[in-house]
Amino acid sequence: MPDLAPKAISTKIGPITIRPVQRGDLHRGFFDLLSQLTEAPALSKDAFAAYVARVDASPDQAVLVAERSGAEHASAPLLGTAAVLVEHKAVRGGGRVGHVEDVVVDGAARGASLGKALIVELVGFCRDLGCYKVILDCAEGNAAFYERCGFERKEIQMAQYF
Amino acid sequence: MPDLAPKAISTKIGPITIRPVQRGDLHRGFFDLLSQLTEAPALSKDAFAAYVARVDASPDQAVLVAERSGAEHASAPLLGTAAVLVEHKAVRGGGRVGHVEDVVVDGAARGASLGKALIVELVGFCRDLGCYKVILDCAEGNAAFYERCGFERKEIQMAQYF
Repeated sequence: MPDLAPKAISTKIGPITIRPVQRGDLHRGFFDLLSQLTEAPALSKDAFAAYVARVDASPDQAVLVAERSGAEHASAPLLGTAAVLVEHKAVRGGGRVGHVEDVVVDGAARGASLGKALIVELVGFCRDLGCYKVILDCAEGNAAFYERCGFERKEIQMAQYF
Repeated sequence: MPDLAPKAISTKIGPITIRPVQRGDLHRGFFDLLSQLTEAPALSKDAFAAYVARVDASPDQAVLVAERSGAEHASAPLLGTAAVLVEHKAVRGGGRVGHVEDVVVDGAARGASLGKALIVELVGFCRDLGCYKVILDCAEGNAAFYERCGFERKEIQMAQYF
């Protein structure tokens, strides 16, 4: 499967680099990070390669990771990740909405504005795609963090599990 | 642009038929319906055809409409619509999540279980795609309706508008 050009998101913020997820992140603790959020067993090498290829191929999806700058070729664990999926709607003149999902910063790296930096990148991605809004669902305890990122409380989230 | 095979969702529930959105729905009040929900100016014929083609081409998206059975070739206004977008995640073993969006039943057709029938179809679509959950955001006043559809309250929704 050929490598597709990654989306043009790669930002150095002081000692932190934010970039699109890559296949090698399977061995950089990507699933250890996600496991701090929810049930996230590591995918197989092939399944993860397919996941990354799918994300790369979609103009409407971004999955970012944060790492220490200079750690790009090292085995240092990733520090955070966040994802967004852009929906194309019929309302609002065929408007687009970004859905932010699966935001997690490693427990040992919190308090360093890393989460905010990830959200700022995703919000910029959505703005560049012409979205009229970005939405997310979060626990009450995380609402203040997202308010600091420019979000406001809207509705309630409901879920049905199978 | 060739017509793509619509997804296999077409259900008659008593006097109501639920089916995928079609190009001709531009003249069946599709945007009048959506305007009962939010700002939804009618798309041009070409833009709407592109929207419908995009939905038809995606295995991960469904936009349903409800109409009176037998009205398929008539000009009778649509009675309701609801949409879902399926997200492919890295968590949960590469799990999928359905995002229900833009649910609206015509003001004159409410109380006839039409909304619930639309939600049941979308939930079935997500289940068939192997989703582990379906989520949505709604106003407090609509929570009881979604509870009757099998949903439970989870987190809070936040939004950032551009």
